[in-house]
Amino acid sequence: MGIRLGENQYGKAEVRLVHVNRDTDVHRIKDVNVTSQLRGDLETVHTLGDNTTCLPTDTQKNTVYAKAREWGGVGAIEDFALRLARHFVGEHDYVDGARQEIHEYAWDRITTPDGPHDHAFSRRGGETRTTVVTKDAEGEWVVSGLEGLTVLKSTGSEFHGYPRTRYTTLQETTDRILATDVSARWRYVGVDHDYDAVYASVRALMLEAFANTHSLALQQSLYEMGRSVLKSHPEIAEVRFSMPNKHHFLVDLSPFGLDNPNEVFFAADRPYGKIEATVERDDAPAPGNAWKTVPGFL
Amino acid sequence: MGIRLGENQYGKAEVRLVHVNRDTDVHRIKDVNVTSQLRGDLETVHTLGDNTTCLPTDTQKNTVYAKAREWGGVGAIEDFALRLARHFVGEHDYVDGARQEIHEYAWDRITTPDGPHDHAFSRRGGETRTTVVTKDAEGEWVVSGLEGLTVLKSTGSEFHGYPRTRYTTLQETTDRILATDVSARWRYVGVDHDYDAVYASVRALMLEAFANTHSLALQQSLYEMGRSVLKSHPEIAEVRFSMPNKHHFLVDLSPFGLDNPNEVFFAADRPYGKIEATVERDDAPAPGNAWKTVPGFL
Amino acid sequence: MGIRLGENQYGKAEVRLVHVNRDTDVHRIKDVNVTSQLRGDLETVHTLGDNTTCLPTDTQKNTVYAKAREWGGVGAIEDFALRLARHFVGEHDYVDGARQEIHEYAWDRITTPDGPHDHAFSRRGGETRTTVVTKDAEGEWVVSGLEGLTVLKSTGSEFHGYPRTRYTTLQETTDRILATDVSARWRYVGVDHDYDAVYASVRALMLEAFANTHSLALQQSLYEMGRSVLKSHPEIAEVRFSMPNKHHFLVDLSPFGLDNPNEVFFAADRPYGKIEATVERDDAPAPGNAWKTVPGFL
Amino acid sequence: MGIRLGENQYGKAEVRLVHVNRDTDVHRIKDVNVTSQLRGDLETVHTLGDNTTCLPTDTQKNTVYAKAREWGGVGAIEDFALRLARHFVGEHDYVDGARQEIHEYAWDRITTPDGPHDHAFSRRGGETRTTVVTKDAEGEWVVSGLEGLTVLKSTGSEFHGYPRTRYTTLQETTDRILATDVSARWRYVGVDHDYDAVYASVRALMLEAFANTHSLALQQSLYEMGRSVLKSHPEIAEVRFSMPNKHHFLVDLSPFGLDNPNEVFFAADRPYGKIEATVERDDAPAPGNAWKTVPGFL
Repeated sequence: MGIRLGENQYGKAEVRLVHVNRDTDVHRIKDVNVTSQLRGDLETVHTLGDNTTCLPTDTQKNTVYAKAREWGGVGAIEDFALRLARHFVGEHDYVDGARQEIHEYAWDRITTPDGPHDHAFSRRGGETRTTVVTKDAEGEWVVSGLEGLTVLKSTGSEFHGYPRTRYTTLQETTDRILATDVSARWRYVGVDHDYDAVYASVRALMLEAFANTHSLALQQSLYEMGRSVLKSHPEIAEVRFSMPNKHHFLVDLSPFGLDNPNEVFFAADRPYGKIEATVERDDAPAPGNAWKTVPGFL
Repeated sequence: MGIRLGENQYGKAEVRLVHVNRDTDVHRIKDVNVTSQLRGDLETVHTLGDNTTCLPTDTQKNTVYAKAREWGGVGAIEDFALRLARHFVGEHDYVDGARQEIHEYAWDRITTPDGPHDHAFSRRGGETRTTVVTKDAEGEWVVSGLEGLTVLKSTGSEFHGYPRTRYTTLQETTDRILATDVSARWRYVGVDHDYDAVYASVRALMLEAFANTHSLALQQSLYEMGRSVLKSHPEIAEVRFSMPNKHHFLVDLSPFGLDNPNEVFFAADRPYGKIEATVERDDAPAPGNAWKTVPGFL
Repeated sequence: MGIRLGENQYGKAEVRLVHVNRDTDVHRIKDVNVTSQLRGDLETVHTLGDNTTCLPTDTQKNTVYAKAREWGGVGAIEDFALRLARHFVGEHDYVDGARQEIHEYAWDRITTPDGPHDHAFSRRGGETRTTVVTKDAEGEWVVSGLEGLTVLKSTGSEFHGYPRTRYTTLQETTDRILATDVSARWRYVGVDHDYDAVYASVRALMLEAFANTHSLALQQSLYEMGRSVLKSHPEIAEVRFSMPNKHHFLVDLSPFGLDNPNEVFFAADRPYGKIEATVERDDAPAPGNAWKTVPGFL
Repeated sequence: MGIRLGENQYGKAEVRLVHVNRDTDVHRIKDVNVTSQLRGDLETVHTLGDNTTCLPTDTQKNTVYAKAREWGGVGAIEDFALRLARHFVGEHDYVDGARQEIHEYAWDRITTPDGPHDHAFSRRGGETRTTVVTKDAEGEWVVSGLEGLTVLKSTGSEFHGYPRTRYTTLQETTDRILATDVSARWRYVGVDHDYDAVYASVRALMLEAFANTHSLALQQSLYEMGRSVLKSHPEIAEVRFSMPNKHHFLVDLSPFGLDNPNEVFFAADRPYGKIEATVERDDAPAPGNAWKTVPGFL
């Protein structure tokens, strides 16, 4: 019996970078959070503390900032992550794989009575755009997504027909509030895409499908959201969702002599439903290592 | 020497209420977080555990939900808080004061290719609207505000001319990023106002003043934001701000042979500047107990 | 009518300082979070952006680190805060007041089979120790406290005898779980104390009083905790508590043919009770400005 | 080309359960957070909203509470998770797999001058104990762990000998602070173990290895921690770690005429190093589906 090093990776997490494009007086800003991790010949780093093949995490951080300048900005986060991954793997023979994760926070230009301001912005809130790029000897993969897109339907949601057991107390309903925080990740086929355009389209399609699906189960809404994306985007092979069912319980006002015709709700925190599923093409190319280091439900 | 009970209050915190207005098929929703606290003759509750004068916090919670139904909805959070305060003080002779704090989260109607949806919404993110209503034997006060309005200027901000001491290392600058999360509270004169309209106007004025002030200090931006609000809103006596200076440090790229003409920044977390100030009218009525139980910097 | 600057203060928040005492091979560490704020002649900083009297927040940060070295460590956080306040007010004629808030995180020495380790530590978790020192032309005040001391009694707590109204649904109980996160602040009389010893004693007295009080209301437990502290500590004038009632609801298992003799509970998040009160000496000296800038319920 | 449902699971997350053992007057409490998820024949739930095979998440929640009563308590979280998984899969023919994740929060009995108290407790803080049990047609797997064990060495850590590139600015050091939050998961061989005893031992071994390893890289400390566990615990096949390098930067006090012999440090938040690795036996049985739904770095 022996003990050995298994899979591993290391790097610098949450490198907060804001880039200001000042090409004209009308500035544009890009606000991202980069986590760079590398793989390679790291056996003796772990077993002996020999750092000969360990590109410091501090150097990874410096590289992120330097490249944002060298490359004239960040661009689509998928493209920036791909270029970083290629740089790290291409420049150092002791690095044979890279995982670059980037989160992007959106800002809106402030509008005053004089019109859109040249260089003043307010943070949008709402969802975060994400990407994880994996590169190794076998290929390159891009998995993009969004987190924290909170949506709610005040009607158009039912839940009934489920099995009843010894432990069932839930009442069936033909009209409830349906609310969730959409977290989704989609795997691209290939790496050359207009990522910004696809992101905007995917987000809009998800919102539309959520809104227009008369829902008999949150699973059904989820599936329709994935299906809608895949129908319009051949460059996407699959979508993985993790969506809480954020319960809004109708408050029983009858002790106070009041009815409650689906008007007054208690928005609960915990526990919550947790619905996770993949919607995929039946002819999609194999995922390879796309999901190997992507946290998720599968 | 004796030991005694001093100031006190109690209640139910964070009653999460979502109200759906279904007057027409085009639903409207209101998403609020209510903290109800009461004051009164509570000496023996504390010293003996005698609950004769202790309206349970559970009952306060029930009241919030019941009143949302009885009153046909929530309306402006200030009005809802005032009505709750009057109910609690008016109905129970052992209650002589109330503090009702409400936070409101904004939602946007989802727009699909078919237009605005009747009953599907996405949470806006961005700032939270707040109010604290205080009512006691001496009067009623309304202090409203906002939290978490994150703004940034990519230029138009300088910082220099400060005293230099033994512990000074900061370099002067005539061009920096200025970023902050605006937290503000404003005290109303009187209690009859179109609170929704004032809120929208105050928010817009703050954004405009932040954007248009060429800033020599974050304090100056803060002051202009307060001044702009007071100039347009005679019903507001004072504005109190607490604003972090969210440092964005220019990254030194010279070790890599690169310049950095205010393009690449590190967005730091801690420490941060913390700027707090009141902007007020010199002829405003005295605050009375408006701020007595309002957490803030003063 | 004119608009003017009201009360204000500014500084650097959350300066994270870890000091290692290496006087012997048995190291000691001190882990604190310092927020320094100053007051003074800051009118034109706000109105004109004239920083002549604005000691930069960056300089305040530098001072915290430098003084930790000059003074050979941090010592009791109250003493460090007092010395910082005196430094800032004493050294700069444009500074006439200071507020120094410090939070301290406790660490335990790691014990191995060889005994306590010389220089390895694990963070204790549990409560944070706090202090706020205020200094101005009128005096010096020390308010210390603790946050996040979570305690629970699995019996020995009742709640009944409260008024019943139209909105009452709560059932009376003679046996419930009582749980809370203790947040407390106590005001010292004078500024020369063995703060570390008092802190340890206050903490122990609060735990003992919470444990040994057969509770008819959370207010009663709170009061006994404060009374116990004041009885033993003449140097403390008052204690202010803010304590959530963290509800643990007995789960109704009767639909499953099961009883539940106070064994299975649902630990709820929101809403929660919120109990706030002061316990004080009737002959305590006036608080002066001790609480002027201390966030709290009063 | 067709679109189809891929991998999926659903359930109730964060069921907060506190169990009080009242067998004697000396109560014992167990505080856990259960996330139950099921797999099975869920195609038409997603595609049609047909819930015939969808055991409601509400029923899963009820089951957790009922079983805590039926089984006379929770016991080791691994055993409770295994029993829940077997119940869900065994009782319902439309359920063919279960994932049960449990987090446990530790409490200490309060000690007063009269000794340990019968029924009063304080929450310990520090790390959370975790387990994820996966059960499907192929078998049962237990992966346990801990999160949030924060440790620090004030000396006995070096970092040098790393490659220098165009983007290197880091200085080598032979004496630095090493600090991390240990997150670890270990996979058991088989499912019959004294889980409580193993947990206590693993935790102690990790602390000892962290303390006693003279570290040339955080990777080396990690590896020694894993190796120490595997050497003593044949029932563990592998340990996976994710450990931030929580940077403590030596403050440059030279501008103030002060030296800083490794005494005054700035504890930084972001970015941080992120070190992830597996330490495993070379003859361990294959993991099967143990890690299939366990979030982690691999």
